[in-house]
Amino acid sequence: MLCPSDAVFARVDKDSSNSKSHCFGDPTMYEKYWQKAGDKTTIVIPGWQSLSYFSDVRNLCWFLEPEFAKEVVRLHKVVGNAITENHHIVVGTGSTQLFQAALYALSSQDASEPISSYPSITDCVKSRLYKWAGDAKRFNKDGPYIELVTSPNNPDGSVRQSVVNRSGGILVHDLAYYWPQYTSITYPADHDLMLFTVSKSTGHAGTRIGWALVKDMEVAKKMTKYIELNTIGVSKDSQLRAAKVLKVVSDSCKPSGSEDECFFEFTNHQMSTRWKQLRMAVQKSGLFSVPELPSQFCTFLGRAFEPQPAFAWLKCEQEIEDCESFLKGNKILTRSGKHFGFSPKYVRISMLDRDENYNLFVQRLSKILS
Amino acid sequence: MLCPSDAVFARVDKDSSNSKSHCFGDPTMYEKYWQKAGDKTTIVIPGWQSLSYFSDVRNLCWFLEPEFAKEVVRLHKVVGNAITENHHIVVGTGSTQLFQAALYALSSQDASEPISSYPSITDCVKSRLYKWAGDAKRFNKDGPYIELVTSPNNPDGSVRQSVVNRSGGILVHDLAYYWPQYTSITYPADHDLMLFTVSKSTGHAGTRIGWALVKDMEVAKKMTKYIELNTIGVSKDSQLRAAKVLKVVSDSCKPSGSEDECFFEFTNHQMSTRWKQLRMAVQKSGLFSVPELPSQFCTFLGRAFEPQPAFAWLKCEQEIEDCESFLKGNKILTRSGKHFGFSPKYVRISMLDRDENYNLFVQRLSKILS
Repeated sequence: MLCPSDAVFARVDKDSSNSKSHCFGDPTMYEKYWQKAGDKTTIVIPGWQSLSYFSDVRNLCWFLEPEFAKEVVRLHKVVGNAITENHHIVVGTGSTQLFQAALYALSSQDASEPISSYPSITDCVKSRLYKWAGDAKRFNKDGPYIELVTSPNNPDGSVRQSVVNRSGGILVHDLAYYWPQYTSITYPADHDLMLFTVSKSTGHAGTRIGWALVKDMEVAKKMTKYIELNTIGVSKDSQLRAAKVLKVVSDSCKPSGSEDECFFEFTNHQMSTRWKQLRMAVQKSGLFSVPELPSQFCTFLGRAFEPQPAFAWLKCEQEIEDCESFLKGNKILTRSGKHFGFSPKYVRISMLDRDENYNLFVQRLSKILS
Repeated sequence: MLCPSDAVFARVDKDSSNSKSHCFGDPTMYEKYWQKAGDKTTIVIPGWQSLSYFSDVRNLCWFLEPEFAKEVVRLHKVVGNAITENHHIVVGTGSTQLFQAALYALSSQDASEPISSYPSITDCVKSRLYKWAGDAKRFNKDGPYIELVTSPNNPDGSVRQSVVNRSGGILVHDLAYYWPQYTSITYPADHDLMLFTVSKSTGHAGTRIGWALVKDMEVAKKMTKYIELNTIGVSKDSQLRAAKVLKVVSDSCKPSGSEDECFFEFTNHQMSTRWKQLRMAVQKSGLFSVPELPSQFCTFLGRAFEPQPAFAWLKCEQEIEDCESFLKGNKILTRSGKHFGFSPKYVRISMLDRDENYNLFVQRLSKILS
């Protein structure tokens, strides 16, 4: 999910499409919907509001804005992608902070051996509590571990389940992409610890708001504690803004029929168009391939569709060994598979850039060898 | 600076004054000024704004909003409390995150022995990079170290300078309270790494916005990297709001005379009144004492005044050994000196609560033994 900032600057290239969005998957595609929605999502914050550190002292997560919590519950109910009952909500500065909070909460403070997860974030402070132990498929050590299940998966978009299946394990479900624009909603997820973020659901990455649904109260308390120690809570302004955004999304998808197009219908259509364009360009060139993933019935949209992930996991076929360099030579900036533990024959490409950039990318791709 | 959340909840007591503000020094006192200022500080954010992760890709700190950076520079110039020339600005989710970013940046990644700082934050992730080594006055180990200079100091309000004075040391200056409502501005600070926060300067703690002024470009880059790994940047909404707030503060203190009262005149007066009330209550009871700190000339306000810190560092005299418990028995919630490495004869009391709570506190204090 991360892309080193040094690399960002080295790659910023005015003459290339997808210049920085390829890195975090900058979700500027969503601007279109929000521009159409007009003033409905505008927020107004007076100067004397939200001065306090505290949002709700009676809540376990004392920096959680009640309005934001309410809209999280409502949206999951509308979409049917997660069960919020019997879960505590913990808000974070993006799901990145929540992931670290989860590691902190789930690591046994007395364990002599640290336990695993995402490499760059996990190892950034060289913590003695936990360390990245590599791909879960190859994990065979004894002792406690944390398995991160990202479903749909980043980078390849496949639907995942836990693979370690060994005692002493704790699961963290990163469900950032489990929304109807990317993949069919097939069941309401009801895991112990689930992570979500507005960056990928509504496109408001600049707000840095994520949330966790946590069954165990002690784990939720420890996550809250981590965020207290790390940043003394989470921006109230952004929580209030995120609450408004989630409300407008839920309102737009009311069964009674809203005046606006349902946010997920609109964005599912955008993604569908983009994936069709990409598959056509790939077919035309004959040099590339993208994963074919099975169609599934979406309980929310009421129809079946193939996954249309936020990132394209593109493979260079034939004798091209370094796909990133090859595409760079064709003015397409991507992120090599080697950053994700795969072969350099693969690259990851953001599908969430603005129309003009995305169209330029598809044009350039389809012109290669044609 | 921190107060454990478990402790917060244990202490929440509807019948007591200062119930939670005592903990972080919740700056709700400032609501009064901002209510008077009316709509000037109101911000309006449309739904399609700030979707991207990026604020300024040409800036070393790529998530820093240019408008916020501009107002930081202007405010320091207006107040004369810090030199911004030849410093890089790094924005953080409060100064707490920036402090951790500084530790990350200043710790030699190859050092075999970790180095020191604030205990609770530093040790929270049990980092192998650094650890809290106790009070700087008693630090006498060889090898690299980081010294945190908090001036004016928390909890006792005294003006501090580096004390370790040994080679291999790096200084971090926490200048959160170096503003004219708390202490005289005597010179523009020009240190290598200075930390500031809106929580203590304007009272907008809920925005979670702090900034660092950093001389060394490599240190600023590493701090940026830490914040990227920790939270992928800082809320744009809150940065935009903080920019507006700083602008209104600078405008209000224009020499040409603004229609509003200068923010620092107003808040300096508030603090002055509160300290007079406290000293009267302390004198009346005969059971307590507060530090007497020397008056200094303030280059900004153009007059001399005694420090009037954001926290009162109160000592229980005579045979009272546990000041916190004693005051609790009198319905006054405080934080024991033992949390700050001092005797339990001392307590820390927030001076930044709302008028009604502050007045209740002073009333209760002055009634003890009277």
